[in-house]
Amino acid sequence: MATETGTSPAPTTHQPDGAEDGLLVAATRRGTQTPVAPTRGALRPLGTDEVRLTGGFWAERQRINAVGIIPHADAWEERVGWIDNFRAAVDGDILTTRTGREFADSDVYKLLEAMAWEHGRTGQASLDARIREVAALIGRVQEEDGYLHTLYGREGQAPRYSDLEWGHELYCYGHLIQAAVARLRTGVHDELVDIALRAADHVCHEFGQDGRDAVCGHPEIEPALVELYRATGERRYLDQARLFVQRRGHRTLKDIEFSRSYFQDDVPVREADVMVGHAVRALYLASGAIDVAVEDADRDFLAHLTAQFSRTLARRTYITGGMGSHHQDEAFGDDYELPPDRAYAETCAGIGSVMVAWRLALATGDLSWGDVVERALFNVVAASPSPEGTAFFYTNPLHKRVPGAEADPDVVSPRAFAQLRAPWFEVSCCPTNVARTFAQLGSYVATATDDGIQLHQLASATIETVLETGAVTLEVATSYPDSGEVTITVVRAPAGETEIAVRVPRWAHGAAVLDGERVDGDVARVRRTFADGDVVVLEVPLVPRVSRPDPRIDAVRGCVAIERGPLVMCAESIDLDGDDVAGLTVDPTSVREDAGTVRLTGTVARPAPEPTAGRVWPYGSAADRGGDAGDVRTVAVDLTPYHAWAQRGPSTMRVWLPADVDQAPHREEVAPHHA
Amino acid sequence: MATETGTSPAPTTHQPDGAEDGLLVAATRRGTQTPVAPTRGALRPLGTDEVRLTGGFWAERQRINAVGIIPHADAWEERVGWIDNFRAAVDGDILTTRTGREFADSDVYKLLEAMAWEHGRTGQASLDARIREVAALIGRVQEEDGYLHTLYGREGQAPRYSDLEWGHELYCYGHLIQAAVARLRTGVHDELVDIALRAADHVCHEFGQDGRDAVCGHPEIEPALVELYRATGERRYLDQARLFVQRRGHRTLKDIEFSRSYFQDDVPVREADVMVGHAVRALYLASGAIDVAVEDADRDFLAHLTAQFSRTLARRTYITGGMGSHHQDEAFGDDYELPPDRAYAETCAGIGSVMVAWRLALATGDLSWGDVVERALFNVVAASPSPEGTAFFYTNPLHKRVPGAEADPDVVSPRAFAQLRAPWFEVSCCPTNVARTFAQLGSYVATATDDGIQLHQLASATIETVLETGAVTLEVATSYPDSGEVTITVVRAPAGETEIAVRVPRWAHGAAVLDGERVDGDVARVRRTFADGDVVVLEVPLVPRVSRPDPRIDAVRGCVAIERGPLVMCAESIDLDGDDVAGLTVDPTSVREDAGTVRLTGTVARPAPEPTAGRVWPYGSAADRGGDAGDVRTVAVDLTPYHAWAQRGPSTMRVWLPADVDQAPHREEVAPHHA
Repeated sequence: MATETGTSPAPTTHQPDGAEDGLLVAATRRGTQTPVAPTRGALRPLGTDEVRLTGGFWAERQRINAVGIIPHADAWEERVGWIDNFRAAVDGDILTTRTGREFADSDVYKLLEAMAWEHGRTGQASLDARIREVAALIGRVQEEDGYLHTLYGREGQAPRYSDLEWGHELYCYGHLIQAAVARLRTGVHDELVDIALRAADHVCHEFGQDGRDAVCGHPEIEPALVELYRATGERRYLDQARLFVQRRGHRTLKDIEFSRSYFQDDVPVREADVMVGHAVRALYLASGAIDVAVEDADRDFLAHLTAQFSRTLARRTYITGGMGSHHQDEAFGDDYELPPDRAYAETCAGIGSVMVAWRLALATGDLSWGDVVERALFNVVAASPSPEGTAFFYTNPLHKRVPGAEADPDVVSPRAFAQLRAPWFEVSCCPTNVARTFAQLGSYVATATDDGIQLHQLASATIETVLETGAVTLEVATSYPDSGEVTITVVRAPAGETEIAVRVPRWAHGAAVLDGERVDGDVARVRRTFADGDVVVLEVPLVPRVSRPDPRIDAVRGCVAIERGPLVMCAESIDLDGDDVAGLTVDPTSVREDAGTVRLTGTVARPAPEPTAGRVWPYGSAADRGGDAGDVRTVAVDLTPYHAWAQRGPSTMRVWLPADVDQAPHREEVAPHHA
Repeated sequence: MATETGTSPAPTTHQPDGAEDGLLVAATRRGTQTPVAPTRGALRPLGTDEVRLTGGFWAERQRINAVGIIPHADAWEERVGWIDNFRAAVDGDILTTRTGREFADSDVYKLLEAMAWEHGRTGQASLDARIREVAALIGRVQEEDGYLHTLYGREGQAPRYSDLEWGHELYCYGHLIQAAVARLRTGVHDELVDIALRAADHVCHEFGQDGRDAVCGHPEIEPALVELYRATGERRYLDQARLFVQRRGHRTLKDIEFSRSYFQDDVPVREADVMVGHAVRALYLASGAIDVAVEDADRDFLAHLTAQFSRTLARRTYITGGMGSHHQDEAFGDDYELPPDRAYAETCAGIGSVMVAWRLALATGDLSWGDVVERALFNVVAASPSPEGTAFFYTNPLHKRVPGAEADPDVVSPRAFAQLRAPWFEVSCCPTNVARTFAQLGSYVATATDDGIQLHQLASATIETVLETGAVTLEVATSYPDSGEVTITVVRAPAGETEIAVRVPRWAHGAAVLDGERVDGDVARVRRTFADGDVVVLEVPLVPRVSRPDPRIDAVRGCVAIERGPLVMCAESIDLDGDDVAGLTVDPTSVREDAGTVRLTGTVARPAPEPTAGRVWPYGSAADRGGDAGDVRTVAVDLTPYHAWAQRGPSTMRVWLPADVDQAPHREEVAPHHA
């Protein structure tokens, strides 16, 4: 689908040395249509040119993205004037007309990145034309020395880099560079690429070893610069990224109300044991740090970052995979501080978590990182857009006590919460982030080694690549997550002995079956010399599961969550005949699946009528009490996949369901599990 | 102690009409040393000139206030330059030198108010001199037409009233006026009073019926103007307060990220069923609205406001009496959204709750509002200052997962949380609010009717006033809340039949004993013709109680709180031999008191060591689990009164203690109680 010749460097030579984590293994190919293409690592990512989603859940998201999200975002960026900001900068009236927040430019770049991947995937000419049109405008705004931002540096504006805490100039370059990488990786070297290269060179000059000893308040340029190095072979970009990662945590940013941990500038990256502060910032920083560790073959640093993310998953992550417990600073909370009602779980943090987990999978070869990717994709990223792709959740709470208001499809939401999916936000990072992620989806599905293909996500797809053992084409067919059967047909078999490895989700350990044989462990593997037409069948049981929290997660004590396959389920009041989920208590032993619907039984207590005299005090002993506790009725509740909640109008909703006390486990029964 | 003649109007005539709520009963006296002196209502407040605290818990707080908080606040307001702002305004260099937030002026006024009450209470001449000194400075800053603010209106500053959402100009007048009222009520008419009168007249002109159709982003001027009316008899101040209350909720303020509910401008006051938005704003507004309802003898409005506050207590209040569940906007959450770890429960909101409950007690004669006052005073307001009165909590969480850092006694805290008590804050509303409240404490203890004295708070005090039945002096002796015995000696008995009524806290209903006889209900009453030297003894049982939450308060499901008398208790890690409160599970049946210490037994689980390989995922079924759940040991835990927590250095802490599951009640056992 590429229309021009790319500038990607020639593939480097494969240098196997048997290192287990693969860090000393240089990649045999790179430059395919993938956003993350390390020069070394255990697994070689396959891009959207090698993995095409052919149907099912994720292909449907790509369709929504193409017909809904991308055109919707383009229209809104014109409507709110964020593209016009560039026009105004050209026309000279930016001082009086600029709209949007400090980082409005970045959303234009993220839209271009989404369009670039989508163009690479589909070859749609109108996307290419639109990218060139907007890039031409951006090019006219870029200054002689490569500086580029619509809010700073002009006469009458604040000076360049005068507000590194909140100015987001380097953050914006990061997204610009990622858009350029998308062009290069899809075989296009156009003006957008030249603009990004000039900006990157400017950054290296301005913030290099002898330049400003500073970092950006919002990490993002770090992974972008590493990827630009990977796409161009220019080591100065990697060096600059490394410098930014090394500088972070040394308190060059000002202290703020949320403290320097907000932008991870409190503790050096190599010393931070668990993620802190603003969740998206922390996850983008970790992505860039992993990229640096991989390129430097720095095993200690990679191990540190792996442990940091593992601790974050163990202590600071919602069952949906969502991250960020605080609304105030969009931040991680303390360990086990995971309130379901105040879950921030920003859509962009879900994407950040996918970015981190995917990088770790590529570096280490551990397919079980795909569990993290899968959980966040199904239960955070997929929850954001409406089925039409024209409205979005910014935050993804696990409990909604009051039905959110339907958002006006013509009004920009000033708030990241309190409403149902909204068409656009004053801070509108999420819609374009979803757009670029959906356009890239094929690139998170499979990887290759010299003699094997690894399937990380269970999705219908055609996988076509060349291994050392020969060219291979696989056809994966599944209706996952509706059913758990995955059929892999070897349409074109490589000549040599080859392994097909498929991630088995942790919840299916010991229950999955490969060609009739029980799978023990994280991965189902078949190694043989395949013949054309061979079929491998994996069955992953999708019976609904009752999940209990670590007892230290105080906010959901005494509750259970129901999961089915990769989907976290929730109860919505619309399924309770007008009652509120606040009164629901469930019998965890009653969970069953019934014609595709997950259902359980319980009771709903209706609140007692307000007393006409006296006051209610909600705390006390049995002896203090009096009055009527309200009606209690038995109910059967149909659960909804969390990602599909609030698609039938305002409802109260909860993922964590109070369990009948008789069924509650003893403390020692609910300890966390290791694997 | 007053040194000049006050301007208080002559006492109005008593006009009994038998109305139960007392709203049509005009007060027989007013102008005593009390911050709230309605012209009508069921009960007549006794001021600090009539009620002197003579010992015990609250007298100790008054001592701390005198030797610690007030001089500390004065020194810090000089140190951070908030008083210098007025000097700079006089000197003409305010544009370049002003420090502090928009509302910094208000903290100077609140300090003056605290000093005024303290001067009235003690007659300390240096306080009077200091008030006059600062007032002289303020007077030079006030403009010809009465306008007064250090941040607005000068050439080079934003225009007056150009930012009603955040400018706080009217809020500052409110505190200025309350300081002036304190002067008038303590018998002093000085320059501060004249300044406040000019400011109030300016407000009536600028925002009157024909003026700007606007309200302040932070309610406060409403109760202040009513009180100024009460202190001066000038109806225009009442009219202006009524206008502000009526205008609120009609969306004259701009929409903001937190929505207009933040400043209660979303719904008219007469239609708002429960408190919403910023808690201090909501409580100050309710105080002013109650004042207007009382002065207007508007029974419907008073009933509405009473129900609004009752619902707020039933659904949106912590067991400590704390209000405000959100850090982000310092706001009330949804119904039953009461996370203990993220409790904001701002000290000032505790004071606001006292303000509202006290007004309702005076208007309605219902002594049980004293329960609300008592809970907030003991468990929110008293928790804020250190024993020396030189450091303060701004927020009052019920669960601290990570030991807070000790604050540097020489550094202004940029944050309202994450530290232990801090000497001063960038937003430093709480210390001066505590100071004025402690100086006023005597005025919340007792009230009078024509033929009775009502004791609202159980505190050692001398009460001296004149009833229709004659002059009366009572000596109240108690070491409450250490012990529950309250001895009331009628030192001077009134001639006629008189009633002594004492509030019986709800938790002691049916267990309190008055002169050997069981008390049934909210109030212990003795009515007779007393003789000098008569003694009345009330015994309130203080056995530790196990309190359970309404089941809709999800965040503390499965937990119990231990209370003893008015004190909410907590567990601190310092009492767990180095273990964290995170691992604590208690046996609620084990609670006992032992030589004044409340103690219970339970277990502490130490976290399992981090796995060296693999990842921990904190959700799952028993079947998913593996590994070691960690050591569990049996412990006896000494509990600490919540107000005294963090006085022995950093600790983790929790009020709500997970209860052994075997002991957990069934749902129907933990419904809220009515009374």
